[in-house]
Amino acid sequence: MNKALQIRVQRDGIVAEGEILKVDSFVNHQVDPSFLNLAGREFYARFKKAGITKILTIEASGIAIAAIAAQYFDVPFVFAKKTESLNLDPDTYETEVYSYTKGKGYQVRVAKKFLLPDDKILILDDFLARGEAALGLVRLCRQAGSSVEGIGILIEKSFQEGAGRIQQEGIPLESLVRIAGFEDGKVIFEQD
Amino acid sequence: MNKALQIRVQRDGIVAEGEILKVDSFVNHQVDPSFLNLAGREFYARFKKAGITKILTIEASGIAIAAIAAQYFDVPFVFAKKTESLNLDPDTYETEVYSYTKGKGYQVRVAKKFLLPDDKILILDDFLARGEAALGLVRLCRQAGSSVEGIGILIEKSFQEGAGRIQQEGIPLESLVRIAGFEDGKVIFEQD
Repeated sequence: MNKALQIRVQRDGIVAEGEILKVDSFVNHQVDPSFLNLAGREFYARFKKAGITKILTIEASGIAIAAIAAQYFDVPFVFAKKTESLNLDPDTYETEVYSYTKGKGYQVRVAKKFLLPDDKILILDDFLARGEAALGLVRLCRQAGSSVEGIGILIEKSFQEGAGRIQQEGIPLESLVRIAGFEDGKVIFEQD
Repeated sequence: MNKALQIRVQRDGIVAEGEILKVDSFVNHQVDPSFLNLAGREFYARFKKAGITKILTIEASGIAIAAIAAQYFDVPFVFAKKTESLNLDPDTYETEVYSYTKGKGYQVRVAKKFLLPDDKILILDDFLARGEAALGLVRLCRQAGSSVEGIGILIEKSFQEGAGRIQQEGIPLESLVRIAGFEDGKVIFEQD
């Protein structure tokens, strides 16, 4: 676990009802690029030997994380889209992801030309809880025949099943901050 | 105009029907961080004397541009949201933006706590055409009493009215690549 990131999550994260950790002041609405720089450097330290050719994330909150991490890896990144758009190439890989926050499934898609069989993909996202979004991105890579070399997560809710589901898929997982639970409105972090 | 950026748009942009310039291989689906780094450095060169305290953009394709530019300015950025979310603070500034691509209006919103009266805002976005999104972000800033110090655009379609509408508002506009039109499926750039 990364101590500097943990301290920031502890200081500025807000615990809301329903075991929701709000990080909207520095991660997913207002964004602090220096925080994401620390995260990007740490993702690079953990995956630099994996031969990553491309980073894959999902709009919207993954984009800033991927953009800054991609600078360290010196590779392009691709963000899977949740909305249909006239500007999106019609030839896409698609899969459905269930959102427990929204209580419904939604389609995510990536233009086929941006996921290639010889790509070595690092998937990045802000949160890992049940693993729905991350595993949706894994399915898109498998449709393309791309190899998923790892999944990097900013904040893992270790008391939910996402990490276990990713391990079952045999994919290396690195979560920079791991949360064991919440108590009296405070975050309890996993011990390393 | 920035020559290196123009050359990249010329090389990798694809002109589609309806005067659409597709830059999905390096800007708004697959993203090249080295291209955005050039853009971020250029936005900084043009606005470094404006005392910017915060960058404002709109999801999704503005996020990567803002994230990388914010590193040069060493300020946080905020992205206005198009979708309602349980994770979004309910106390928001809102405005409607009309999308000609989608043929309908949509709401954009920013949590009030992230736009403050003493903020000096730089608005960044990938495209400027009719100016709907940029002017929507200006309205959010004005609701907050924040000062809009400038608008920075990656690619301006100079044959549409966005630039003129922003000038009428008295807001400094800097567009890194300016397109005069399209001819035989090719981009014609404005001459400096």
